[in-house]
Amino acid sequence: MNEKIRIVIAGPRGRMGKEAVELVSETASFELAAVIDRMNEGKLLSDIEGFRGLDVPIFTDPAECFQHSNADVLIDLTTPERGYLHTKTALEHNVRPVVGTTGFTSEQLEELTALAEQKGLGCIIAPNFAIGAILMMKFSEMAAKYFDDVEIIELHHDKKLDAPSGTAIKTAEMISNNREVKKQGHEDEKETITGARGADFEGMRIHSVRLPGLVAHQQVIFGAGGQTLTIKHDSYNRASFMSGVKVSVETVMGLNTLVYGLESILD
Amino acid sequence: MNEKIRIVIAGPRGRMGKEAVELVSETASFELAAVIDRMNEGKLLSDIEGFRGLDVPIFTDPAECFQHSNADVLIDLTTPERGYLHTKTALEHNVRPVVGTTGFTSEQLEELTALAEQKGLGCIIAPNFAIGAILMMKFSEMAAKYFDDVEIIELHHDKKLDAPSGTAIKTAEMISNNREVKKQGHEDEKETITGARGADFEGMRIHSVRLPGLVAHQQVIFGAGGQTLTIKHDSYNRASFMSGVKVSVETVMGLNTLVYGLESILD
Amino acid sequence: MNEKIRIVIAGPRGRMGKEAVELVSETASFELAAVIDRMNEGKLLSDIEGFRGLDVPIFTDPAECFQHSNADVLIDLTTPERGYLHTKTALEHNVRPVVGTTGFTSEQLEELTALAEQKGLGCIIAPNFAIGAILMMKFSEMAAKYFDDVEIIELHHDKKLDAPSGTAIKTAEMISNNREVKKQGHEDEKETITGARGADFEGMRIHSVRLPGLVAHQQVIFGAGGQTLTIKHDSYNRASFMSGVKVSVETVMGLNTLVYGLESILD
Amino acid sequence: MNEKIRIVIAGPRGRMGKEAVELVSETASFELAAVIDRMNEGKLLSDIEGFRGLDVPIFTDPAECFQHSNADVLIDLTTPERGYLHTKTALEHNVRPVVGTTGFTSEQLEELTALAEQKGLGCIIAPNFAIGAILMMKFSEMAAKYFDDVEIIELHHDKKLDAPSGTAIKTAEMISNNREVKKQGHEDEKETITGARGADFEGMRIHSVRLPGLVAHQQVIFGAGGQTLTIKHDSYNRASFMSGVKVSVETVMGLNTLVYGLESILD
Repeated sequence: MNEKIRIVIAGPRGRMGKEAVELVSETASFELAAVIDRMNEGKLLSDIEGFRGLDVPIFTDPAECFQHSNADVLIDLTTPERGYLHTKTALEHNVRPVVGTTGFTSEQLEELTALAEQKGLGCIIAPNFAIGAILMMKFSEMAAKYFDDVEIIELHHDKKLDAPSGTAIKTAEMISNNREVKKQGHEDEKETITGARGADFEGMRIHSVRLPGLVAHQQVIFGAGGQTLTIKHDSYNRASFMSGVKVSVETVMGLNTLVYGLESILD
Repeated sequence: MNEKIRIVIAGPRGRMGKEAVELVSETASFELAAVIDRMNEGKLLSDIEGFRGLDVPIFTDPAECFQHSNADVLIDLTTPERGYLHTKTALEHNVRPVVGTTGFTSEQLEELTALAEQKGLGCIIAPNFAIGAILMMKFSEMAAKYFDDVEIIELHHDKKLDAPSGTAIKTAEMISNNREVKKQGHEDEKETITGARGADFEGMRIHSVRLPGLVAHQQVIFGAGGQTLTIKHDSYNRASFMSGVKVSVETVMGLNTLVYGLESILD
Repeated sequence: MNEKIRIVIAGPRGRMGKEAVELVSETASFELAAVIDRMNEGKLLSDIEGFRGLDVPIFTDPAECFQHSNADVLIDLTTPERGYLHTKTALEHNVRPVVGTTGFTSEQLEELTALAEQKGLGCIIAPNFAIGAILMMKFSEMAAKYFDDVEIIELHHDKKLDAPSGTAIKTAEMISNNREVKKQGHEDEKETITGARGADFEGMRIHSVRLPGLVAHQQVIFGAGGQTLTIKHDSYNRASFMSGVKVSVETVMGLNTLVYGLESILD
Repeated sequence: MNEKIRIVIAGPRGRMGKEAVELVSETASFELAAVIDRMNEGKLLSDIEGFRGLDVPIFTDPAECFQHSNADVLIDLTTPERGYLHTKTALEHNVRPVVGTTGFTSEQLEELTALAEQKGLGCIIAPNFAIGAILMMKFSEMAAKYFDDVEIIELHHDKKLDAPSGTAIKTAEMISNNREVKKQGHEDEKETITGARGADFEGMRIHSVRLPGLVAHQQVIFGAGGQTLTIKHDSYNRASFMSGVKVSVETVMGLNTLVYGLESILD
């Protein structure tokens, strides 16, 4: 790829948007073309504190942005409402979207899929861009073919409300694609304190640790005679999402349909 | 210590007894004086398969053994019944006992304590000789002074019946010496699958993993703003008990009372 | 599979052979047909101490064994010399071999490959049957496509002579299939004590820990902005090889050529 | 303690100072009395962006600050030069200093020690306030009495210049207080790639891992027959220092001399 990929970022002042700006700035094969912001129309991004040297135009209207920026790819890490509008507008202007969201309805996804197909344009929509987490799930699904027994331990900061985490449940679901339902542990095992053996998901167990200091961590432990295989992901901060965004931008250039989920583009 | 410590081992053919024989054989400052066995009276230990070169006498009667072996220390890793008899007989013959058991009654312990005191002899009785496990518990108790939040994960083979493990509960009890009762995690946290947050011990959580392949493992994780401190013990086989037996033999020579629990002799 | 797979085990009294006998005995879909031993011709296996209830015939001559045992599969975990003879003889008698060895010459492998093809018989020859270790290597190779930076830590008992371990080097080689040579760490980093940064393998680093108590463990850590992905294998004892043998026996029944390496039969 | 501890913070706009302001604001038994800043004399802290609601006075002159703030404790996480001046001035005004620095000269330390003693005031000066790291070192020193063999693995982000880390070397030094110099590993072990066995510190080994994504982590692994004991500290961000500052503020109120190093005030 000799020419740089020209990129529009939506929501550059948001927490994830800032990380995306940093990613594009630091990647030699990427070039920031413009940004979409709810305010600051007519200014340059470099006029905003924290974006020194980035003299690309700010647009509040996405259609206008795509008409003037000669962009290849849109990176959108905003809200489902704005994201949907941006994605649709991008495809209409022949710009390939890379979108991080869990919030699109199935109608919206169908519509965008049809639009991408009609235009022959790649489009990647993913609920999770942490490539390490995606690989952890994928490898766990694969390992389940060879190990009958597995437990999941997920560890998060103590402000988290739900247990188990969404990632743990998603992992268990993927494992169950290759695992027969089976009650694990000794058939006569007894909890002397309720809950010791964790959450029961089709006979495999999930344990949720909550402690101040922790960020977002998960380990999947497979056991068989004389050995264990552990697949572990540690997420320390938001930058963890950017490796997945980078791969997606590079991949979307070679696609001509909409793809859902980062796992679909990893070999 | 210039002279070797002369040692009698009870039950040399048992699983733990064999390890003890190996420990004594391999320690330069230890010397095997005799063994107490339920059978094989009058033979040498070297007559038994698996004890090549160990030409020390076998006694079935403990009193006779101590009269003829000029021993300093008894190592007993047999049953509570036989262990009690051996311990009492050893003290009566001025031999210092090192005994691994959880099974002595409080009456027996009181009687042995009085006997050791009267004789001015050291005696160590311990439920657990795995020195790493003892240190894990001790350090956890200490760390609890500085960290309000802690969870315990214990991992064992899937033939284990009870959850949590005895060591996990003992650890939690020791931690609670330095910890105020407190419900951990978010006050509004919710289990979407029952048991995810583990067993509740005064507000701290214990998680029990059971998988084939595992042996006996435990980690204690303390969390505070921006950091975690983890203390972890892995026991791979019975040899793990022998470091504690070694320290006990060395220590008992300098004691003149009965001490219960390995933790009591570690600084 | 309604009928049981009938299996011949070579070297049933060896350390690995014993594990194989246990595997076959405990697997409902497997049946022990006969064993090949260097001695004990004419006896039953149940005549040998430690094999109670296994009244299958012992043969010293492999050809005779295969003629009389109506076997489907040979499991051979003996020496390269005997293993080669057993494998060739098995194929000649239409028995599918599953062989654990690193010692066959390339001429021998070529000859056996031709023979298997001519007979249309499956044959699996593998240097390592620990399925968890194979998956660790395979997943590491895959993850290297998405992570530029990786270090390997292998941990073994302190009787091991070579560092890094063979598995660590094999892992590094497989990673390098998907990784560009690159010096990792800060370009100006400095070792204040020589060796701190470990062994340099094409710019990635390998660290070898040696401690009493450890068995055989390895972790491969991939790092990228804000996250790490760790793939870890712990081998606690020889039983760890048997899950790979089991998969191989099941797989070899559906093959009609020789396959080298367990990784080749895992999806 | 019924009354709140009144605290002055020096350098509230610095990275560590900000964390200290947050700590004091969030601790029910602490009260922010005033701050010392190089600028903004006469303003309130709440006039500065990011300190909403904290309407305490800003002083540029430390003496004036202590005269007007009726403070109990000074928290200083600035530079050695300013820290020295602040500490001395605090003691002269009967305010107890808690100071984070490695930069005081031994003359300065002697002078401050004498001054604290003369005034009968507590003063804590510490190079490292991450209480988990201090406990890791302390526990490692203790465990070394019972385990002859130990290796240290420290893992940091790949912008770090020196290997091994200062904490790893400090840990090794503390371990060597209770460990005889001894070459670990097999006596005939061989590195097939130089550096595999890590840095040699009196015969124990230190391994330095450097990967993007990592923050600051260390594990100390002790090994003996059949078991390992691991003590591990993970630091995820600067907040990790604040638990140590909190303990120090609480402790310094009961001291009447200068204490160096957080380890000196932990039981």
